[in-house]
Amino acid sequence: MSHNSFGHLFRVTTWGESHGPALGCVVDGCPPGLQLTPADIQVWLDRRKPGQGKFVTQRREPDEVKILSGVFEDAATDGPVTTGTPISLMIENLDQRSKDYADIATAFRPGHADWPYFAKYGVRDYRGSGRASARETAARVAAGAVARKIIDGVQVRAALVQIGPHAIDREAWDWDAVGENPFWSPDRGIVATWEEHLEAIRKAGSSTGAVVEVVATGVPAGWGAPIYGKVDAELASALMSINAAKGVEIGAGFASAALTGEENADEMRKGDDGPVFTSNQAGGVLGGLTTGQPVVARVAFKPTSSILTPRKTLNQAGEEIELRTIGRHDPCVGIRAVPVVEAMTACVLADAFLRHRAQTGGGAFHPGETERR
Amino acid sequence: MSHNSFGHLFRVTTWGESHGPALGCVVDGCPPGLQLTPADIQVWLDRRKPGQGKFVTQRREPDEVKILSGVFEDAATDGPVTTGTPISLMIENLDQRSKDYADIATAFRPGHADWPYFAKYGVRDYRGSGRASARETAARVAAGAVARKIIDGVQVRAALVQIGPHAIDREAWDWDAVGENPFWSPDRGIVATWEEHLEAIRKAGSSTGAVVEVVATGVPAGWGAPIYGKVDAELASALMSINAAKGVEIGAGFASAALTGEENADEMRKGDDGPVFTSNQAGGVLGGLTTGQPVVARVAFKPTSSILTPRKTLNQAGEEIELRTIGRHDPCVGIRAVPVVEAMTACVLADAFLRHRAQTGGGAFHPGETERR
Amino acid sequence: MSHNSFGHLFRVTTWGESHGPALGCVVDGCPPGLQLTPADIQVWLDRRKPGQGKFVTQRREPDEVKILSGVFEDAATDGPVTTGTPISLMIENLDQRSKDYADIATAFRPGHADWPYFAKYGVRDYRGSGRASARETAARVAAGAVARKIIDGVQVRAALVQIGPHAIDREAWDWDAVGENPFWSPDRGIVATWEEHLEAIRKAGSSTGAVVEVVATGVPAGWGAPIYGKVDAELASALMSINAAKGVEIGAGFASAALTGEENADEMRKGDDGPVFTSNQAGGVLGGLTTGQPVVARVAFKPTSSILTPRKTLNQAGEEIELRTIGRHDPCVGIRAVPVVEAMTACVLADAFLRHRAQTGGGAFHPGETERR
Amino acid sequence: MSHNSFGHLFRVTTWGESHGPALGCVVDGCPPGLQLTPADIQVWLDRRKPGQGKFVTQRREPDEVKILSGVFEDAATDGPVTTGTPISLMIENLDQRSKDYADIATAFRPGHADWPYFAKYGVRDYRGSGRASARETAARVAAGAVARKIIDGVQVRAALVQIGPHAIDREAWDWDAVGENPFWSPDRGIVATWEEHLEAIRKAGSSTGAVVEVVATGVPAGWGAPIYGKVDAELASALMSINAAKGVEIGAGFASAALTGEENADEMRKGDDGPVFTSNQAGGVLGGLTTGQPVVARVAFKPTSSILTPRKTLNQAGEEIELRTIGRHDPCVGIRAVPVVEAMTACVLADAFLRHRAQTGGGAFHPGETERR
Repeated sequence: MSHNSFGHLFRVTTWGESHGPALGCVVDGCPPGLQLTPADIQVWLDRRKPGQGKFVTQRREPDEVKILSGVFEDAATDGPVTTGTPISLMIENLDQRSKDYADIATAFRPGHADWPYFAKYGVRDYRGSGRASARETAARVAAGAVARKIIDGVQVRAALVQIGPHAIDREAWDWDAVGENPFWSPDRGIVATWEEHLEAIRKAGSSTGAVVEVVATGVPAGWGAPIYGKVDAELASALMSINAAKGVEIGAGFASAALTGEENADEMRKGDDGPVFTSNQAGGVLGGLTTGQPVVARVAFKPTSSILTPRKTLNQAGEEIELRTIGRHDPCVGIRAVPVVEAMTACVLADAFLRHRAQTGGGAFHPGETERR
Repeated sequence: MSHNSFGHLFRVTTWGESHGPALGCVVDGCPPGLQLTPADIQVWLDRRKPGQGKFVTQRREPDEVKILSGVFEDAATDGPVTTGTPISLMIENLDQRSKDYADIATAFRPGHADWPYFAKYGVRDYRGSGRASARETAARVAAGAVARKIIDGVQVRAALVQIGPHAIDREAWDWDAVGENPFWSPDRGIVATWEEHLEAIRKAGSSTGAVVEVVATGVPAGWGAPIYGKVDAELASALMSINAAKGVEIGAGFASAALTGEENADEMRKGDDGPVFTSNQAGGVLGGLTTGQPVVARVAFKPTSSILTPRKTLNQAGEEIELRTIGRHDPCVGIRAVPVVEAMTACVLADAFLRHRAQTGGGAFHPGETERR
Repeated sequence: MSHNSFGHLFRVTTWGESHGPALGCVVDGCPPGLQLTPADIQVWLDRRKPGQGKFVTQRREPDEVKILSGVFEDAATDGPVTTGTPISLMIENLDQRSKDYADIATAFRPGHADWPYFAKYGVRDYRGSGRASARETAARVAAGAVARKIIDGVQVRAALVQIGPHAIDREAWDWDAVGENPFWSPDRGIVATWEEHLEAIRKAGSSTGAVVEVVATGVPAGWGAPIYGKVDAELASALMSINAAKGVEIGAGFASAALTGEENADEMRKGDDGPVFTSNQAGGVLGGLTTGQPVVARVAFKPTSSILTPRKTLNQAGEEIELRTIGRHDPCVGIRAVPVVEAMTACVLADAFLRHRAQTGGGAFHPGETERR
Repeated sequence: MSHNSFGHLFRVTTWGESHGPALGCVVDGCPPGLQLTPADIQVWLDRRKPGQGKFVTQRREPDEVKILSGVFEDAATDGPVTTGTPISLMIENLDQRSKDYADIATAFRPGHADWPYFAKYGVRDYRGSGRASARETAARVAAGAVARKIIDGVQVRAALVQIGPHAIDREAWDWDAVGENPFWSPDRGIVATWEEHLEAIRKAGSSTGAVVEVVATGVPAGWGAPIYGKVDAELASALMSINAAKGVEIGAGFASAALTGEENADEMRKGDDGPVFTSNQAGGVLGGLTTGQPVVARVAFKPTSSILTPRKTLNQAGEEIELRTIGRHDPCVGIRAVPVVEAMTACVLADAFLRHRAQTGGGAFHPGETERR
């Protein structure tokens, strides 16, 4: 069984290979009446776009999104709005250089999905990793833009908090800094260090891992579907499904193991607008439900497996070979994962909202919806 | 939307509250013809059972499982076998002391699901945390026992690798040690340290976090359903859904962030029975598919939120109060999570196997099945 | 793949065999705060109960339902209410006479599921048809009782409109008549004819088919999930899944084929409370969405396959044999299907309502819900 | 909740409006290694294509399908084969005349989905019925072509068996006749009658209903997923979801109601290759599982609701108006439904096969698959 959909009520089905004619997604379950133009999606895609600096892949793709269905504009509406029918989004692949991949047509690159795809399917589109390419995440970012419309009182922002061994100074966190540097760093002080580190990595033909942190504010208490649709479990699945992800944690995460009960459990006080918490070790989730605090998660990304160093491996014939992966690659795949982490988080929360509304009649969240009914 | 099922083709639906008459699950999608007796399930439940030592809850429950449907024994069969119809499993609750919970009927315990359940549903069964109780995991362990039957060539084992700040010595890992101590530790050397640590924690009325590691060997290459049913994403969701889990990592996990591409990508060599790898940073998963190597995951558990120290919180009326949680609690919820982590892993792998077989016609895995057709 | 759940947001998973210890279901996704007692369910189960007359099976089962989870009663609530967690319902099997079935342990009864179950699973619980028994529908009726609570402004009523060749006079339709005769006939005039017909059938050891009609009033316009969760398609699946069902039609149904466009399309006029229609050929569904008119469907049931006449068939060894089916059977399975048709319709509509609310924020339907939030 | 996917393991998600830029579908779960070219799909689309005679819509669409993902051709493969990843299929809309629909932008056509779509969503794409257009079925036919590849030992064929009051002579059934007349009639004798009838209907600006019958041969015994994924229930849902469908029956269907148990239950005899049946009242399905006999279903289609006769209705302002529907319409929508009924049946059976294989390890069905593994 293949499984190319995620979400339950806000349901996204993605399709497309790295070197096929196009890729895209179908977004099903979107509420009607939300304003949606290609520009609303493009702004997020542009953040993920390749070819934007020397530390990301040199593949040049405009990544221009087309909306093929699900919106309608007529005299009575102020610009195109969603109609409640499936939204089909398509992005054409333009800068394919399939010949780069001739060498690996019958070889299994170490750390790549080549071997298990072959073991599973007996056939694989080896060009740019085919379906296993991180290029698929463009479709996720497009879907995330629609998700944001549904929960527009929620702000979902991510940042890079570690590259290789160099973690940011959390005291220096400034969301304004994130857009000012090519690494989405919230700590201006670490930018020079990261630049130097990546330059060395790039020159060595090597690669490095990273950690991304995402924070969603404005999430009301009570979202999440116990026991197996918990918000944190859904986030864990969504974030772990991103290419190269190897770990996901919520709030204090793995550090929780070393805490005492007193340090860990966030105390509650009376606030002007519902409960306030004096800390957020929980990362905004208790019992799989949102608490009203910011939802906080972190994702660890492994180093890009495509490196210039020759590596021992096998080919399809089962012979032992050495392989050097040339082609256009990100030395630190975690950097371009930042908008993808945001998008997946937005999708999970939009889905959680719709599920919550189904069971509890929680009413409209998007102001535009309220007015309609 | 409530969501009390997990899995796709091996699908488990659990039900029951901590202090209701019973809890249980319905296991749907199990292949026919597998031998299954209550004893086959009981052996795993007994490992998770409460009341088995001073470091776990003192609640005394025999946790005896009943099989209400889905198996059949007649002259032609050698003991009861699964029939392919849903397997209903029930465990009665016997040692409820609901009066222990009168104090918290209208108070929100810090770190517990009390507040978000109330925010979501407007009503909650406060007795022993109701549905949010870790008692629900008994149903998962029962389902896991069925899952193991489906993939009986696969061995799924978990161990505790950290309690509080004390991590095991990985060089000392011995699977035989795991059953010999009350902590499921694979490192005999750390047992005394943990005992001392927990004794202090218990005396202080406090609690501590922990990390569990699970290893599945014998998994063939190619299981997993790209892109959104990847084995690692499914594991992340399944493990994060366990009570008190705050982080999940696969293979090198968060440590991947600090690795170089050379250190990270596992090299492949020719083996007698397919490829062999010279390392397992990937934790047995590449591109969301199994590689044939052991599948390795770790889960971080936060400290039990029920502690004797008085804590600041609110009650349902919105008033600020102080609360001391009495009752019967595990000082380290991670210990009893070990068999639950195993069970969830077994369920994810059984599901992955059935999905794999659906799409690729991979044939029978269980030897008994082969003979039947 | 087994598939023992139905519904999407109002999701019911049934389990149990005819001659196992019990049968039941888990109802997941029910909104919180609905009053629910065993008596609320029992009233519907009692209508379906066997042993209530000479034209239905003589098996005597009290069919007493137990609620094992999902409701909670405390000082603050006025009787037990749903909590939003899964509702587990169980009915014990008491009057099993498994020895009646020894003859058919290795024979395939014509018209029964014996042969394909054996072909599929290689093993089957032959006692009372095992999982394929109409006894499973008790669980559906129990679930339907919960569904009714969710959409309590909707009235779902069914009646028997044909037995054998004898159809009712539609002009004589009186809902009050339905409860007054053992056939659920809305036409008092046909009762004597049916009685005579069934008496002859029973004496001959034969059986007869029937048609059930269900009408749901009070359904607002707009429920249904295009394109593949259309209300009529969901109904078709739900009703066809009932034992012995061979046809389902909506509104004018098969008679539509012989109509002209003018006869078929229902005209609309202005009403006090939204549009009114001058006819209801559509059966309350257009484009898969409810129109605000009564939803009308009919289901055809084949004659019970268990008859006393010896019939040609095969046994498991592949030998040709003759078989007479003794045991306790309904001569007209359509009679006891009436409450099952109602229950399935209620479940489909409750699900449609929750899905509608998820996508459109349509707010509360149940008055109790409104007050809560 | 919108719901634009059907199938479980062979899962199809369709998208697109009648007058948007394109429509299409994503086919997920297809086994790898099946040969698939655009021509393999086009042959079925051409059968459904509009503008092919005076009795179907005059809209002229080449309906040329593009395969955007999921297949791969390289030196090692003999033509493009499926890779196991999602197959994205797209058909561009070329002959839109949106101005035809200006009149109905704010009016609700009787018998159409205009009113409930507006009631549900508050906004609707009125051009050519938007998403509710039968044009969406092109995507189903494309998906059906892929389904046929998976179960290529099964032959799925449909025919028109009734137009208005004129039913075929079943004794005259000849599958070869079906392709020789513009009505897909298996009875050559009725063609002139139907032609005359439709000519009169067309001249009167009216429309007529029809009945389609589908027969699938070569289906092995045991497919289907009890209790809620029964093959007949799945077929009922799939066929009822087709535009204008109002009834579905299996085997003897509604006629079963008037049968006796002796007439109804098909007897079994020994055959060279498993059991043979002496009749097929069951339509190849018992207990929701296939029996090995041909699977037979019939679907009733209502007359097209777009007719030239002025009709009473309302507009969006709630005013009573009269409406004449001009534009390009099929006088008998049942005709072009024939290939759609086939496609949906093929999809249901492919899904049933994959589900069966998941649970029972039934091995490969497609010969090509066998060779691969």
